[in-house]
Amino acid sequence: MARVSQEHLDARRRQILDGAARCFARDGFHATSMQDVLREVGLSAGAVYRYFSGKDDLIAAIAGEAVGAVREAFDRAARVSPPPTPDVLIGRVVRILFHDEANAARGLDRRAFAGLIVQVWSEALRSERLAATLDEAYTGLRQSWSGLVGLYRESGVLVTDVPDEHVARTLIAIAQGFITQVALFGDAGPEFLESGLRGLMSMNLQKAS
Amino acid sequence: MARVSQEHLDARRRQILDGAARCFARDGFHATSMQDVLREVGLSAGAVYRYFSGKDDLIAAIAGEAVGAVREAFDRAARVSPPPTPDVLIGRVVRILFHDEANAARGLDRRAFAGLIVQVWSEALRSERLAATLDEAYTGLRQSWSGLVGLYRESGVLVTDVPDEHVARTLIAIAQGFITQVALFGDAGPEFLESGLRGLMSMNLQKAS
Repeated sequence: MARVSQEHLDARRRQILDGAARCFARDGFHATSMQDVLREVGLSAGAVYRYFSGKDDLIAAIAGEAVGAVREAFDRAARVSPPPTPDVLIGRVVRILFHDEANAARGLDRRAFAGLIVQVWSEALRSERLAATLDEAYTGLRQSWSGLVGLYRESGVLVTDVPDEHVARTLIAIAQGFITQVALFGDAGPEFLESGLRGLMSMNLQKAS
Repeated sequence: MARVSQEHLDARRRQILDGAARCFARDGFHATSMQDVLREVGLSAGAVYRYFSGKDDLIAAIAGEAVGAVREAFDRAARVSPPPTPDVLIGRVVRILFHDEANAARGLDRRAFAGLIVQVWSEALRSERLAATLDEAYTGLRQSWSGLVGLYRESGVLVTDVPDEHVARTLIAIAQGFITQVALFGDAGPEFLESGLRGLMSMNLQKAS
């Protein structure tokens, strides 16, 4: 048998993951069978099982990638010094996350990709493996974004005496809510989040009751 | 056969829904069978099928109640004139939603209840019936909270020229993200949201780059 290059192995693995992601986005984790995945990618069972031991393994790999994409979007958006204001920053996070050409190449539109993330959340309620993946990513995010909020404080932008982590978690919540709205209603563009948050940040609290 | 009072019918229906909600929160919609629900509520199939035609019917009823609870929490929180600032308001929404004694009486803790909502989101990606329920509730929420944001504008609290609806959707996103964090990580209390949002709202944007 001819030696198979690493490049070929990686491409094959990518092909299987992309096909499975399309199946999962379309029919959900539960209603998708390994047969469906084989049909979607046009490979034999032998070829696919060489890479993944079964559906749970595929779900874990796809969940890991989706969580990694969210993490990466936050990290890349924050890699600017000094950081832009939170409205601009959160807009950048969701733009990076949803304008990823890699998703288009995989045959997933933004709503399907958001739906995949919501499915991962739901599945993590029952799967310790997925829960651990999400937990690790979230812990990392919370730390790095707390550091970012610390920069706002140092530069005099954040003037209120609230824990940095609370601000970080609220920003993460805004992105999670955006993902939910894209998945469920499809009509959510980054603009509403940017201008909505800008509106909140510019409120005249002296006028408030 | 003795006539059965409406009160008795309602209590029986409630008993079935509560037992099913516990099953779904524990094992998920997909891994729960009607047999599991019958065992949990301690009733015969005949008794349960008198109220619900099957699992999909139970899921739809429970989803309707969860969505209704979210809607009700937003509505009740906003029923104060003039409205408190958004940080206080959003804190109130999630306090009403998660400190509902009705949930405790049903044997659901806050994390389990949040998990049910995340499951409903995920299921709505595949079920037109659930999607329609969520869509209707979300449309109503968006309208009523846009009206609320209009009050902030009238009273001079909201000074920036952004669409009211964008602010409303951002506030809804914050609550959705909070629900996600409670479901996934369990450690989210309303305080972090209140102080995190207060931090964002009090930023000194003149100092920002």
